[in-house]
Formats: sequence, C-alpha cells, structure tokens
Amino acid sequence: MILDVYLREIYGAFITNRKGTGMDNERYLRGWEKLKEVDGQAGENVIESLRDIAPDFARLIVEFPFGDIYSRPGLDLKTRELAVVAALTAMGNAAPQLKVHIHGARNVGCSEQEIVEVIMQMSVYAGFPAALNGLFAAKEVFADPNDAQRHLASGG
Amino acid sequence: MILDVYLREIYGAFITNRKGTGMDNERYLRGWEKLKEVDGQAGENVIESLRDIAPDFARLIVEFPFGDIYSRPGLDLKTRELAVVAALTAMGNAAPQLKVHIHGARNVGCSEQEIVEVIMQMSVYAGFPAALNGLFAAKEVFADPNDAQRHLASGG
Amino acid sequence: MILDVYLREIYGAFITNRKGTGMDNERYLRGWEKLKEVDGQAGENVIESLRDIAPDFARLIVEFPFGDIYSRPGLDLKTRELAVVAALTAMGNAAPQLKVHIHGARNVGCSEQEIVEVIMQMSVYAGFPAALNGLFAAKEVFADPNDAQRHLASGG
Amino acid sequence: MILDVYLREIYGAFITNRKGTGMDNERYLRGWEKLKEVDGQAGENVIESLRDIAPDFARLIVEFPFGDIYSRPGLDLKTRELAVVAALTAMGNAAPQLKVHIHGARNVGCSEQEIVEVIMQMSVYAGFPAALNGLFAAKEVFADPNDAQRHLASGG
Amino acid sequence: MILDVYLREIYGAFITNRKGTGMDNERYLRGWEKLKEVDGQAGENVIESLRDIAPDFARLIVEFPFGDIYSRPGLDLKTRELAVVAALTAMGNAAPQLKVHIHGARNVGCSEQEIVEVIMQMSVYAGFPAALNGLFAAKEVFADPNDAQRHLASGG
Amino acid sequence: MILDVYLREIYGAFITNRKGTGMDNERYLRGWEKLKEVDGQAGENVIESLRDIAPDFARLIVEFPFGDIYSRPGLDLKTRELAVVAALTAMGNAAPQLKVHIHGARNVGCSEQEIVEVIMQMSVYAGFPAALNGLFAAKEVFADPNDAQRHLASGG
Repeated sequence: MILDVYLREIYGAFITNRKGTGMDNERYLRGWEKLKEVDGQAGENVIESLRDIAPDFARLIVEFPFGDIYSRPGLDLKTRELAVVAALTAMGNAAPQLKVHIHGARNVGCSEQEIVEVIMQMSVYAGFPAALNGLFAAKEVFADPNDAQRHLASGG
Repeated sequence: MILDVYLREIYGAFITNRKGTGMDNERYLRGWEKLKEVDGQAGENVIESLRDIAPDFARLIVEFPFGDIYSRPGLDLKTRELAVVAALTAMGNAAPQLKVHIHGARNVGCSEQEIVEVIMQMSVYAGFPAALNGLFAAKEVFADPNDAQRHLASGG
Repeated sequence: MILDVYLREIYGAFITNRKGTGMDNERYLRGWEKLKEVDGQAGENVIESLRDIAPDFARLIVEFPFGDIYSRPGLDLKTRELAVVAALTAMGNAAPQLKVHIHGARNVGCSEQEIVEVIMQMSVYAGFPAALNGLFAAKEVFADPNDAQRHLASGG
Repeated sequence: MILDVYLREIYGAFITNRKGTGMDNERYLRGWEKLKEVDGQAGENVIESLRDIAPDFARLIVEFPFGDIYSRPGLDLKTRELAVVAALTAMGNAAPQLKVHIHGARNVGCSEQEIVEVIMQMSVYAGFPAALNGLFAAKEVFADPNDAQRHLASGG
Repeated sequence: MILDVYLREIYGAFITNRKGTGMDNERYLRGWEKLKEVDGQAGENVIESLRDIAPDFARLIVEFPFGDIYSRPGLDLKTRELAVVAALTAMGNAAPQLKVHIHGARNVGCSEQEIVEVIMQMSVYAGFPAALNGLFAAKEVFADPNDAQRHLASGG
Repeated sequence: MILDVYLREIYGAFITNRKGTGMDNERYLRGWEKLKEVDGQAGENVIESLRDIAPDFARLIVEFPFGDIYSRPGLDLKTRELAVVAALTAMGNAAPQLKVHIHGARNVGCSEQEIVEVIMQMSVYAGFPAALNGLFAAKEVFADPNDAQRHLASGG
C-alpha cells in the first residue's frame, strides 16, 4: 500500500521528467506483472529496499530484467528459474539473490527435488563448495519461506 | 576403435589393480553410455585427449559427472544442459566447455532459440560481456558443429 | 550503410511488432548516439556481429547499457570508462570487452597513462595476473587501434 | 551415534537399491576414513547437515572428493590441504569451506605459520582483499577450533 | 595511541632485523600517510586487526598498496577510489573491503551520487545481483559511517 | 644482454629519481634473484614484455611478489608453486600465468605427477572445467617447455 504510493511517486516523477507516455509505460507495467509472478511479495520488497539509495535502479530492475528479458517467449519460467539457480549457485557470490530465485523457482512451479538436483549438478561445473552453499541456501528457503522474503530486502 | 582399445586398457588396469568387480564397473558403463548420449563423438574425444596427461581423470569424468550426476532421475537432460549452458556462460572462464555443452544441449533436443534465450538471460545475472561471449560461442557452434568437436579435445 | 539497412530492419520490425512509438524509440536513439560516442566504429561492429545469432540482443545493448545507463548524468564518460576498465581487468574473464573499453576510454579522452595506472592499481584488488593481462591488452590496443575494432566483433 | 544410524540407513538404502556389493562399498568406506582423517568431527557434521536436504549428496561427498581424490597417492595430505587453502582463499566465495580446510590443514599437521604464509601469498595472485579475508578466517579458526566445527555444518 | 606503540614495535623489529635505513622507511611512511588520507581511522583499524595473526602483512599493506600504488601520480584519488568501488562491486566476493572503499571514496571527496552511479553501472558488466549488493553496501555505509569503521576490522 | 641494459636503465632512473640507496636496492636484487630461481628465462621475458607499456610495473613485480613474498621463510618453494598452480587452476581466468607457474613448479623441483595431482584435486573445489583446462595447460608445458617461455611474454 505504502509501496504503491512510492511506486506511483517515483514512476510518476520519471514519466513527467521524460515526458514518455507509450512504450516505456508498457515495459514497466509488463515488467511489474512479471516480477510479481516470479517473486511475489519478494519483488515488492526489493523495490522498497532501494527507495532511499537508488530509486532509479528499482525502476531499471522492473524494466530490463523483468520487462525485457523475463517477458520474452522461447523459454518457460520454470526453465528460466532453474537456469538462474544454476548460475547463481555456480558464481557463488550472490547469496541473497540465490535465495530469492530458489523461492522464485518454487513460485513458478519447480519442485524441491528439481531445485536440489540442479544445485547438486553444479558440483561438476563449479565445485563442491559452491554446490554445498547452494544446498544450504535451499534448505533455509524450504524450511522457512518467510526467510526468502526477508532476504528479498537485499536481492532481486 | 583405437580409443576402444585404450579404454579397455586403462579401465582394465584399474579393475585389475583395485580388484573391484561389481559396482564401479556398473558406474563406469552407466557413465560412458550417458556421456555418449549427451556429448556423442565429443565425449570420446575428451577421454582420448587426457590419455597421456591424466588417464585416471578420464575415468573419473566418466564415473562422477556422467555415472553419478547425469544418471540421476529428477531432471530431464534438456533442462540439465540448459542449466550448464547458463552456469558456464555466467562463470565466463571455461570457453571450451561452454562450447561442448552448447553442442550437448542441441544433442539432447534443445532448439537454438532455447539456447540463445538462456544465454541472453545471463546478461541479467552476470553482465553483458558474459552474455555476449556466450552468444559468440553459440554462433560458432551453430555455424560449424565440427568446431564443437574440435573443442572437445580441450573440454568436457 | 548495409548496417543502416539492417538496423532499420530489426528496429522497424520491433517497432511494428510492439506498436510502440514514443519512449522506446527515444531510448534506442539516445543509446545509439551514446554507443557511437563511446565506441565509434566498434559499436557498429558489435551490433553487426549479433545480426545472425541474436538480433534482439543487439537492440537490448543499445537500449539498456547505452540508452539507460551511460546516458545518465552524475558521472562523466571518462570516469565511467576508467571504472569499466578497472572492473573488467579485475574480473579477468572478458578479454574482448576489456579491449573494447580500453579503446573506448581513449575515445572519450583518457590518456594512455591514466589507463595504465588504473590497470596497475588492480594488482592490489585482483592480483598481479589480472593486472598483467590488462596491461598486455592495453599494449595491443595502443599499438594497433584497428585491433580493438576487430575485437569489437566479439565484444561490447 | 545417531549419525551412525543415519549413515547406515542412507547407505543401506543405497546399497539395497543399486544392489552393489563390492567396489562402491570400498570407495565409500575408504572415503569415510579419509574424511575423518582430514576433517575429524567436522566431517561428520557436514554429512549430518545434509540429511534432510540432499542425503545423496552426503554420500557423493564421501565417495568422490574423499574416496576418489584424497585417497590418491602422489601428494601428501599437508600439501593437499595447503593447496585447498590457497585455492579457496583466491576464489574468495566459499568462506565456510575455507574455514573447514584451515582447520583440516592443522589437523593433518600444517603449522599456523605455514597456513598464514600460503594465505599471504595469495595477495599476489588474487589481490589483498582475498588474502585479508583469508587471514581473518584463519584468525577465527586459530582462536576457536570449535568455530571451525560449527562452520562444518555448512561446509565440506 | 596503543596502535602507535604497536606500529613502532613491529616496524622497529623489521628495521632492526633487516638493517634497512633509507628507502623502505620512506616507503612505509609515505604509505602510512596515504592510508590515513584515504581510509582515516579505518586504516588504523585494519592494521590493528592483523596484529596477532600476520603483523608482517600489516606492514606489506602499508608499503605496497599505499606506499607504492596509491602514491603514484597520474590518477587522482577520487578516480582511484571510484575504480576500486567499481572493481569490488563487480567481483562481488569482498564485501568488507567494498564497504571500506565506499567509505574511502567519500573520504577523498566523491559524492554519494557518484558512488551510486558507478555501482549501478556495474549491472552492465557484472550483472544485477552484483550491483544490488553494492548498493546495499553503500546504503549501510551512508546510513552509518561508523559501520564502515567497524568493517575496517576485517578489510582494507 | 639488451635486457641488462634496459634493467639498469629503468632501475637506474628509479634510484636516481627517488634518491634511495639502501633498502629498496636490496629488495629489488633479492627479488630479481628469486624470480630467476623460480621462473628462469621466463622471468626475464615478462620484465622485457612490460618495457614499453608499464616499466614501473616490471619493477614492482620484482619487488613485491618476489622480493617481499617469495623471499619469506616459512614455506618452501615447491609448496609455494603447487599452491599457485592450485589457485590459478581454480580461478580459471589467468591461463598464461598458470602455464608460467606449471613451468616454475617443475623448475623448483616438483614432479609432473605432483603437478597433475594438485590440478586434478581442483575438480573438487572449482569444478571439472577448471581442472580440465589446468590439465591441458600442463600437457602443453610438459610437451614443450619452450611453450612456457613464449607464454612468459604475457605472464608472470
């Protein structure tokens, strides 16, 4: 609710400032719907958490990753989320975002088994420490979905 | 053919040496079948290329990644290969193996569009240079499948 | 020239497809001008090189990195380019793009000394191998600016 | 004790399921002995911590890293552990496992000085932040060996 | 004060031990002044925190990064600090040191806007998770400069 | 020979410029001896290759990695070189320097088997692609030691 006001406020300022009306508005709204579909409440939290440090970045996250990339056809959301869980597990340096996407993977219909399998598979490509840290992240998210939401305050 | 002799030779030596009979033989054969299913000729090339530097590592690649991980149920091969393409694109430091798995992804039924989509998606998680280098790798593999096979001499 | 036709073609298809008229057109054109300002001919080459593998990604590169990020006020182009040279040197896994941005840094007014200094500084944060590989990239670009342009076929 | 029951349970299920008798049993037992030699109580903790999220991965850790790799001749355990401390310090993205292996290095006979030296050396190859974070990890493990054991619940 | 005693003590021991008189003393003092100029109290904290684990490394940090690199002409301190913030954001595996340098950037005259801009820019080169984690680090340092100082106990 | 002239020239300019006489001269000479002990002709090549791009960095490489770090007691050169081979294999983004240190490891007395073992071990900590690329680097260096020397023109 407060977030709604905030979003209208920053996006309104943006619209007014750039005098854009058509396309970007569409991109933003398309991105916003997609972000909610993938991340749920978590999506709103990350936007909120950027409010006082980089409000423009909140808008860019809605527009590019969600409005441009996730909205593309050619790959279903389940496969997209498993691919992100794989990549973030392998990179091993973005724990909050890994948790967000483990949560997101379940949100779009992946089973816990599928998530565990794709993380285990990363032991081959990025080593056992990366896979272990991915499994412990999954354990926390599966045990407490609210944990994922709290982490959404520092991820996306 | 020559490879067959070589494989019998190193695996035979291994079997004799450890006096194992049942299980590991099964793991190795299961892994070997899976490796051929995913990587085709490329799989045989990587084994061959390790012959004079680390023959035991050739055996371990057959046994662990293919015999243990890829043979697990719970995730189909298409999803596994797209996840690896995503991870190796994001890591950005294993170009030969990325090409092998772009080739492998097609081998197990992924369309070129699906591969391009998952690489493009990595721009969000690992940046545009990683995604660009992934796309150029895909371009080379799509243009010349034999290129992938040549690279298999230095990948897996 | 041929590129112009190509760009009109892909962007035209995009515009027609999405029926956008105002904002995104602006973003794209703003990005295109910025890309030429930073990368010159190199910018056009990277777009061209994506033509047959991922034409949409060519458009996204114009729109997000250049139309959204580089067009922002608050940081001059010289500082932005030195920051990218620093980051890509430190990451050490995107050699073609590092060369492009060493070229871009000179394009927007950085001296060779400034570029060498920022790369040397990375020895502190990412180690001597990363700094050495950065210096050798700079050496090649300084010696042959056309080298940078050739690399632009595989970078951005 | 409870762990013993658990291990018999998962390994028993595995044996029954695959009908393996000889070789793999040997690998598992060989790995288990090696894991205890290197990591002590910590080894048992990491197995236990995977119980409810990925019990098969617990088995794979015993079998591949410890049963296959650490059991190989050709390199003594002290050199192996210093090499791992070097690698994990340089990678900088696996803090819990770095602590486990600092603990493991001492376990197999490395002096604190040797561990500190190899971490300091990483400043040359991976930068000062990586070396500093390695040194602070060592400081914590040296000050409180139980700290390492607690971390073993999220490492290996 | 206590630190002064400590520094005299370790440096004195070093001087005595190596019988150096001229040059290195100059390097050390030049580095020490530069470290205080960039990091303020934080610089002293990191030296102090290494006291019991690796006192020689404390000296090397003063001498090489600060005495050798930061003291070089050719790049002003503001640009150097923004380059480090960019690099550490992109690497994503050295959170304590990133905070120290966000603090350092402000110390040498960078505005909060400049710091936020360079971090946002890293979304292009290292992905959105890296940029997000950088922004959250900045948020914490801006909100509580003492937070940065506390982190200096584990950074540099 | 030409290199000798060059070295005297840059180091002479440095000495004159800073009016240092004692300590640093010692560090530089100590580093130079150590660099030759570890890398042989390769060490001279890397210095030479920096001549026209960053001569000061050539001096810093002699002074810090070799004069300060490698000259420390507490760890023998064989262990140091195996630790570097492990770290560079695991990082996977510094191929020329990995080759230099595989060559260096042999130079200080490591057997080919020890080098192969430590690289294979990295499959556990950094994944199979990293280990494979390390093994192929070793294969090239073992097959043609001059190959290592050529790579020393772009490494250290």
